[in-house]
Amino acid sequence: MNGVDLIKACSAIGAGLAMIAGIGPGIGQGYAAGKGAEGVGRQPEAQGDIVRTMLLGAAVAETTGIYGLIVALILLFANPFF
Amino acid sequence: MNGVDLIKACSAIGAGLAMIAGIGPGIGQGYAAGKGAEGVGRQPEAQGDIVRTMLLGAAVAETTGIYGLIVALILLFANPFF
Amino acid sequence: MNGVDLIKACSAIGAGLAMIAGIGPGIGQGYAAGKGAEGVGRQPEAQGDIVRTMLLGAAVAETTGIYGLIVALILLFANPFF
Amino acid sequence: MNGVDLIKACSAIGAGLAMIAGIGPGIGQGYAAGKGAEGVGRQPEAQGDIVRTMLLGAAVAETTGIYGLIVALILLFANPFF
Amino acid sequence: MNGVDLIKACSAIGAGLAMIAGIGPGIGQGYAAGKGAEGVGRQPEAQGDIVRTMLLGAAVAETTGIYGLIVALILLFANPFF
Repeated sequence: MNGVDLIKACSAIGAGLAMIAGIGPGIGQGYAAGKGAEGVGRQPEAQGDIVRTMLLGAAVAETTGIYGLIVALILLFANPFF
Repeated sequence: MNGVDLIKACSAIGAGLAMIAGIGPGIGQGYAAGKGAEGVGRQPEAQGDIVRTMLLGAAVAETTGIYGLIVALILLFANPFF
Repeated sequence: MNGVDLIKACSAIGAGLAMIAGIGPGIGQGYAAGKGAEGVGRQPEAQGDIVRTMLLGAAVAETTGIYGLIVALILLFANPFF
Repeated sequence: MNGVDLIKACSAIGAGLAMIAGIGPGIGQGYAAGKGAEGVGRQPEAQGDIVRTMLLGAAVAETTGIYGLIVALILLFANPFF
Repeated sequence: MNGVDLIKACSAIGAGLAMIAGIGPGIGQGYAAGKGAEGVGRQPEAQGDIVRTMLLGAAVAETTGIYGLIVALILLFANPFF
């Protein structure tokens, strides 16, 4: 075993850890989906506005999941340590 | 033991860690399902709109779970480290 | 100890980690079940629509739990590392 | 120490980790039980429908807990690694 | 293996751990998105104000996710330890 192999091994663990961030957007966007469905049930005539607001907010909530994915992909494919 | 074996061993742990992201969509989409069921019970005539909004939001919430799965599959079957 | 044994040992840990994803669908589907039961209590005549929406949403919420199970089974029975 | 002992040791950790999934159904089904009891208190005449919906949803929420149990039992009694 | 390699290996794990912070903004911003969609459904004429308030709050909620990203990027690309 040499040092670069240890770095690669720990990078694989690090990439897995980074994906755990995905818990957050999954919960948050699901909450938004639930509130969106509830709102559409109450005012079907406002469906367009409700869905647009829901998707805009969900896009913001997605960002930290994307950050985690980017860090994981850096560790996998653009690792600066070797 | 050589270095590649250590990388493989840690990649197996990393793949498992990445799947933990699945907690999020599971909670979020279940919330959306609950709100959808509640809404359909109140306005059965709006069932189509409610279910469509619920599924649209759930699809967005699924994304970070898919990211975790992709990273796990990369670690398992397209590991860039060896 | 040789390298393959280390890979097997860490794959056992990885399979266990992947199952932690099951927390999510368990919470989410339980929420859907609660909202479904609440809705049926209020509008028993809409039971069919409520239960169908609940089960449709619960099926979507199950997906990330299935992903975790698949990754665990791959690690156990179709391990690509040895 | 030989390799099989390491595999057995890590399988014990993996089996324990897999059971953490039980957090989810425990919370979710408890929520469903709470909402079911609430609903029966409000409409005692709908008790049958409420309880059936609650149990149907709870059965779905149980699945990921079962998956974790299966993976743990495989690691304990049908370990494919030795 | 030398010491710098161990530092690099542990930095990869640290970068992954830092991203777990993303759970928080994901949940919080999703909640904001849900409440925003709910509000727009009730007062569509106030959509501009609701969305602006939602985005302002989401920007504040984003900060800790950014902190995690910054620390991860420092560990990856501006590591002060070697």
